[in-house]
Amino acid sequence: MLMDTHDLTLDDLLIRKRKMWQPRRGYRMGLDTVLLAAFVSPSPGEIVADLGTGAGAIPLLLTARFSGIKVYGVEIQEELVALAEKNISLNNLSAQVEVRHGDLTAMAEVWGQNRFHLVLSNPPYRKPGTGGKSPLQQKRIASEEIHCTLSRVVAAAARLVKPKGRVALVHKPERLPGLVEDFRSNNLQPIRLRFVHPRLKAAASLVLIEGEKQSNRQLTIESPLVIYENTGEYTRELNRIFYGEDGD
Amino acid sequence: MLMDTHDLTLDDLLIRKRKMWQPRRGYRMGLDTVLLAAFVSPSPGEIVADLGTGAGAIPLLLTARFSGIKVYGVEIQEELVALAEKNISLNNLSAQVEVRHGDLTAMAEVWGQNRFHLVLSNPPYRKPGTGGKSPLQQKRIASEEIHCTLSRVVAAAARLVKPKGRVALVHKPERLPGLVEDFRSNNLQPIRLRFVHPRLKAAASLVLIEGEKQSNRQLTIESPLVIYENTGEYTRELNRIFYGEDGD
Repeated sequence: MLMDTHDLTLDDLLIRKRKMWQPRRGYRMGLDTVLLAAFVSPSPGEIVADLGTGAGAIPLLLTARFSGIKVYGVEIQEELVALAEKNISLNNLSAQVEVRHGDLTAMAEVWGQNRFHLVLSNPPYRKPGTGGKSPLQQKRIASEEIHCTLSRVVAAAARLVKPKGRVALVHKPERLPGLVEDFRSNNLQPIRLRFVHPRLKAAASLVLIEGEKQSNRQLTIESPLVIYENTGEYTRELNRIFYGEDGD
Repeated sequence: MLMDTHDLTLDDLLIRKRKMWQPRRGYRMGLDTVLLAAFVSPSPGEIVADLGTGAGAIPLLLTARFSGIKVYGVEIQEELVALAEKNISLNNLSAQVEVRHGDLTAMAEVWGQNRFHLVLSNPPYRKPGTGGKSPLQQKRIASEEIHCTLSRVVAAAARLVKPKGRVALVHKPERLPGLVEDFRSNNLQPIRLRFVHPRLKAAASLVLIEGEKQSNRQLTIESPLVIYENTGEYTRELNRIFYGEDGD
C-alpha cells in the first residue's frame, strides 16, 4: 500500500530537523494542523491520541515540541498509515509514536476508554457534497465528512479521554455553535477557544477549541491568533510557531 | 420616583451633542453598552427594542447614529425609567424613543410578538451572589441575574423579534456556550460574533453576539475588537466608535 516515492514529497517541518513524506497530490498538511499542534501543551508522561492522523503530522510536531509524551494516531486510509509509518522511521520515533489503521470511532475498543490525557483531531471540515469536489478520493476523505461526522469525532474523542483530560480540535468558525453543543453533550466543557484571523481586520478563518472532560472550569476566549501583518509577512507569533524556541 | 439632581451626573455621549443624566452612584453606562450600540446597524424604518434600557443609553446612542428608526425601551427599575424619560426630553427624542416601566419577559403582551426588526439587551452578567456584592440595590439589579436569567432574556427577545429579524446581546465570554445554546433553542441562529479584547494579546473581556430568527445564514466570527493599543491609548476603532463619523 506504500505510495511510490515519485508520488511523494519530502518536506521539512522546520522544527528539530523533523522531516515528513507527504503525497505530492492528495491530502497534504495545512496551516490548520500546525496551529492545532501549537495550541495544545501536553505534559511529560502524558498519553496523546490523534484521530485522523494522516501521514502523522501531529505526532511528528508534538513529539518535536514536547518531551516525554507518547502519541497514538489512527487513520482510516491505509496508504496514509503506511506513509505515517515511513515518517516515524525516518524521524526515529518508533518509541514515542504508534499509528494504526482503523476507524476513529472504534478506537475505544482498541486503545481503551478513559485512557488519554489529550485527544486531538483535525477532522474533515466540509459536509459531503459541499465545496468543490476534489478529483482525488484521498483528499476528499480527509476534507469532507464522508467517513465521519463532526459529532461522531467529538463523541469518539470524549470516550477516549480521561476525566479532567482535554480534547482539542480545529475547525471552521461557522461550525462553532454545533461544535460547542457537541462538546457539551459529550460532557466536554469548552475551556479554551482561540480564533485564527488571516489579518487583524479580517473575519476568523479557523477556530481552535479545547474542552475538558467532566470539568467545572470556565471558558477563556484567548487572544486572537493573527497570521499575517498588513505588510503580508507572517506575524511574530506565526514565526514563533514555525521556527520557535524549540526550532533549530 | 425621579432621583434628586444631586444624585445625578450629566454626561456627554460625545455624539451629536447627546447628553445623558445618570445616577452618580448606582448603575452607570459602561463600555459594554457603547460597544453593543456600535455593533448593530438598524436600517431606516426599522423598529428596535432595548430590554433593560436603564437610563436610556442605547436608545440615545442608536438614534444619534441611525436615522429613521424608532426605539422602544423597557426597564424594571422605576427610578431609571423616570431618568430615561428625563433623558428623552433633554435630547428632544420623544418622537423616536419610548421607554416603559415593566418586566422585559412580559413585553410581548404589551408591544406584540414578532414585531421588532432588532432587539438588543445588555443583560445582567453575573449569577446572583457571585462577584462582589454591590451595596447599591439599583446596581445589583442591573448587574446580577436577580430579576431575570440570561435564558429568559433570550427567550423574551426571540418572542419580540420578527422572523429574519435580529437579536443582539453583549455578555461575558465565559458565558458563550450557554448563550449559543439559548439562541439556538429559541430559533435564533447566531450569525455574527465579535470578541472584545482589552489589548491584542489579552483574552477577551466581552462577547457581542447577533442572531437572526428562523435563519439559514452562516455564522461569521468578525475581526477582534481591540480596545487599547500597547501604548495605553484607545485604538483607532475605539476612537471611531466614541467620536466617529457621526460625531460632532
